[in-house]
Amino acid sequence: MTELSAVLDRIDQDLPQSLERLFGLVRIKSISTDPAFGAECRKAAEWLVAELDNLGFDASVRDTAGHPMVVGHHAGPAEDAPHVLFYGHYDVQPIDPIELWEDDPFDPKLKDLGNGRKVVTGRGTADDKGQLLTFVEACRAYKAVHGTLPVRVTVLFEGEEESGSPSLKPFLDANAAELKADYALVCDTGMWDGETPAITASLRGLVGEEIIVTAANRDLHSGMYGGAAANPIQILSKILAGLHDENGRVTLEGFYDGVEETPSNIKAAWETMTGGRNDMLEEVGLSELAGEKGRSMLELLWARPTCEINGISGGYAGQGFKTVIASKASAKVSCRLVGDQDPEKIRASLRAYVQSKIPADCSVEFLEHGASPAIQLAYDSPLLTKAKTALSDEWPKPALVVGVGGSIPIVGDFQKLLGMESLLVGFGLNDDRVHSPNEKYDLTSYHKGIRSWARIMASLAD
Amino acid sequence: MTELSAVLDRIDQDLPQSLERLFGLVRIKSISTDPAFGAECRKAAEWLVAELDNLGFDASVRDTAGHPMVVGHHAGPAEDAPHVLFYGHYDVQPIDPIELWEDDPFDPKLKDLGNGRKVVTGRGTADDKGQLLTFVEACRAYKAVHGTLPVRVTVLFEGEEESGSPSLKPFLDANAAELKADYALVCDTGMWDGETPAITASLRGLVGEEIIVTAANRDLHSGMYGGAAANPIQILSKILAGLHDENGRVTLEGFYDGVEETPSNIKAAWETMTGGRNDMLEEVGLSELAGEKGRSMLELLWARPTCEINGISGGYAGQGFKTVIASKASAKVSCRLVGDQDPEKIRASLRAYVQSKIPADCSVEFLEHGASPAIQLAYDSPLLTKAKTALSDEWPKPALVVGVGGSIPIVGDFQKLLGMESLLVGFGLNDDRVHSPNEKYDLTSYHKGIRSWARIMASLAD
Repeated sequence: MTELSAVLDRIDQDLPQSLERLFGLVRIKSISTDPAFGAECRKAAEWLVAELDNLGFDASVRDTAGHPMVVGHHAGPAEDAPHVLFYGHYDVQPIDPIELWEDDPFDPKLKDLGNGRKVVTGRGTADDKGQLLTFVEACRAYKAVHGTLPVRVTVLFEGEEESGSPSLKPFLDANAAELKADYALVCDTGMWDGETPAITASLRGLVGEEIIVTAANRDLHSGMYGGAAANPIQILSKILAGLHDENGRVTLEGFYDGVEETPSNIKAAWETMTGGRNDMLEEVGLSELAGEKGRSMLELLWARPTCEINGISGGYAGQGFKTVIASKASAKVSCRLVGDQDPEKIRASLRAYVQSKIPADCSVEFLEHGASPAIQLAYDSPLLTKAKTALSDEWPKPALVVGVGGSIPIVGDFQKLLGMESLLVGFGLNDDRVHSPNEKYDLTSYHKGIRSWARIMASLAD
Repeated sequence: MTELSAVLDRIDQDLPQSLERLFGLVRIKSISTDPAFGAECRKAAEWLVAELDNLGFDASVRDTAGHPMVVGHHAGPAEDAPHVLFYGHYDVQPIDPIELWEDDPFDPKLKDLGNGRKVVTGRGTADDKGQLLTFVEACRAYKAVHGTLPVRVTVLFEGEEESGSPSLKPFLDANAAELKADYALVCDTGMWDGETPAITASLRGLVGEEIIVTAANRDLHSGMYGGAAANPIQILSKILAGLHDENGRVTLEGFYDGVEETPSNIKAAWETMTGGRNDMLEEVGLSELAGEKGRSMLELLWARPTCEINGISGGYAGQGFKTVIASKASAKVSCRLVGDQDPEKIRASLRAYVQSKIPADCSVEFLEHGASPAIQLAYDSPLLTKAKTALSDEWPKPALVVGVGGSIPIVGDFQKLLGMESLLVGFGLNDDRVHSPNEKYDLTSYHKGIRSWARIMASLAD
């Protein structure tokens, strides 16, 4: 650990310069969704290539149909050293509404909040320029102290994450051999709280389906036909109501195949984390846990599958009233998946269930809206264990293993296209206001984030 | 019956002139919904007043905020003779799309369809100019033969029936004493088929309600919140699915209070009428009876109450998919009522049921969309019995007692504002194409319609 100590010291000493470099990157207005900022996006990519070159990377700006990628390779200490792919994105969200910003979004500064907290203000400080630089600066310190990095490193910086990543999959496909590593490190997530780092070990998958029920061949007058003619909204309501039993469990046949119980120590940790409170619900005006009974909020969100109705329509929904029996009614339904649930089997089960509830003189049409399996880093994987120890050594409180209720597309792409697991570690805080005016990144997130990556790289080298 | 025979003979002899008068009224372009035809509406009203004056009525054009009413009074044979109010409307629907008309909609002619059927073509021939003239021409024949009418008669011709009748209620209110009679005769309905006349004895009532369920105070991401946060579409689906049991009966408490079983002879007649076929459903692409099990199609439509979902919306219903958990979901629900069901009690029962299904951290809002009770002419009332006999004497097949699944506002207004029951008799046929291009009225409907009213008046005089 003496080797690491020197690196950590170097990080502390170099912090003012690290901060200047963050300012430099934030000043580049790399808003990816607005074509007017195309040149700024390229400038950010070139800025990163220059920094990586300084650190001994073989780095280049790589053109795509959209904004360019940055790819860099560092040989590390030896050919057989572990090889990591680090991912981040240099593009940022638009700044509207500009009048709500207290400070210029592209003129970053260090602001003292007075309660011991200092923050870096500006668009992209937290999402994701500050976060990606935590890794780059950790590499810099390693290079400065030891002349090389503890592991082999490939970096991939994207410039379209905030605008749907249209070029990402083609780029991964075309450069799979070059980009493949032992696993990916992704820095685009957050801490549990200011003192507690978090590793995201699970991401729920998704299967989306649209159900369109047709009864009569035209809309009917409810006076003339009501009581004798099939009502597709009523049929659909019964179908949707039947998706869950009285305990909130999904009733579809085979739905829970591949769903494993979360280890009890993880569940216990989650219960401790919230202290039994459902603050997240209270923030949005709710207080009761919906869904499966007998499970904690975090377990429901991170480790249990769902079947949700995301939209419904049928008949007359405008102002006033129309006594119509609609010809059609439709609903959009999605299932969040965990563990080894098979999206296509679940889609088939959903369709079979719906079909079984359609009266003989009515019909149903299905539209497919995507499918992706869940991602689960084994709770006992060495990658997770090492990162957990490294983070726990750095921060006041031990690192927590958390989940994400939704998907993070890049992680699925790395899994599917490059066959790599991802370690998701990030230092954002809930009050960073990403995508909103007055985005900031805590100085502590930046400083201890850099130190965290140094520790993680060191532990991965073992 | 000798008295009546002479009247019927006179009707037969006068048919060519009666037809000319129908042509004359149809030529007036009294489209009430289009302000450009305001003068034509008044012209139609004046035309009717002139005809009524000829028949010994004390008739006048009565101004309203919209198109005028026509009111006429005939003293009949004696002060204590039965007193009827005859209602019809002289306004017509627009003629668009004009290119689909085979003949000029306002240049009526007698057309021979070749299979023994002759029809009068033109807008308003069936709805309602031809129908209202059947009564006027019956009065004319009576007057010609006997110098007076067999009963005291008030006529009320409206000019806004096709544009929502905005002036009707105020007019009935303001002239209640003048318009009140023993009962109303309304000629704006149809025959069962070309040989079988029909009397409409029941009209279903309606109570409309909008249900708006609110869960979180904003739309949520289904990845972040799905499985733990209440989903208002799911809550609403359960509520709507619970409105009916497995036998199609409405589950609301007290819903069937005031619903009586239809007399078995009426039910048997209805089953005979359809021959057990559900043609009406097949015309719209359906084949199975929905709703309450064990009841025939006509009973379901005419004599049983319903609870229908007329519209539903919530979440994302556009193209594609959005993994959202909506903050709100809403449905429009209406109940068709029969017998003595109390609309407001049913509204209260619906609200109580819905409220009982709302989770503690969610809320529901209700919007009222109208309420009207059902109308039921007692199956054994003398009015119905007399009219049934009169019609059965005129037509090849006996008159049927039918219902209407929806409401006819004028009948409710006569009931509520003037305390009068209505006898609904009309001679329209299913292929009259009312409100559509190529509207027509069968010559037989007109001729035997006139004779029918002569017979009904005669029977009412007894």
